[in-house]
Amino acid sequence: MLLKNTFVHHVHFWLHDKADKQKLIEGLNILLPIPHIRDIHIGVPAETFRDVVDRSYDVSLLILFDSPEAQEAYQVDPTHEIFANNYAKLLCSKVVVQDSVNVG
Amino acid sequence: MLLKNTFVHHVHFWLHDKADKQKLIEGLNILLPIPHIRDIHIGVPAETFRDVVDRSYDVSLLILFDSPEAQEAYQVDPTHEIFANNYAKLLCSKVVVQDSVNVG
Repeated sequence: MLLKNTFVHHVHFWLHDKADKQKLIEGLNILLPIPHIRDIHIGVPAETFRDVVDRSYDVSLLILFDSPEAQEAYQVDPTHEIFANNYAKLLCSKVVVQDSVNVG
Repeated sequence: MLLKNTFVHHVHFWLHDKADKQKLIEGLNILLPIPHIRDIHIGVPAETFRDVVDRSYDVSLLILFDSPEAQEAYQVDPTHEIFANNYAKLLCSKVVVQDSVNVG
């Protein structure tokens, strides 16, 4: 199915200490009830090993929203702020977000 | 909705020449009928500008598969090979794939 009217929000996390992976994943799970989210996937690198594949990150968070406005509302949701301040900022050495909207 | 049993395949493309954006998008559209795909999103960077947001890529391709095996079958589908050889390899200076599977 071609996903239209979809705002793709993909975050990759690199931990300071790989021993904190479960703690970060626990933190990501607190995001699940945030109402603006359509679909959410919490993942780790797959077993794919081609040259173009980046497996350097520790944890992946993919969220699909119905609109850019839903993503903006999510960013300022208090639960998201708890996750950002108490988990992501404490545990991660690098966080990269890639947000994509449908081609015109 | 929490997406379980989902293989996330996200590809970001950087063009040699930004004038080729529509050509690359045309190429991505030939992928749509490949049967192993559950959901597919073809996108461009959203209008989000925080420090952690990477807007350097030109085009995004997100595909959700039901399993790692479905993604493997997609990789060798002849239509995917046409896309890779006649569009991605010709037009892009960099391609980065991030594949993620659900946390155990």
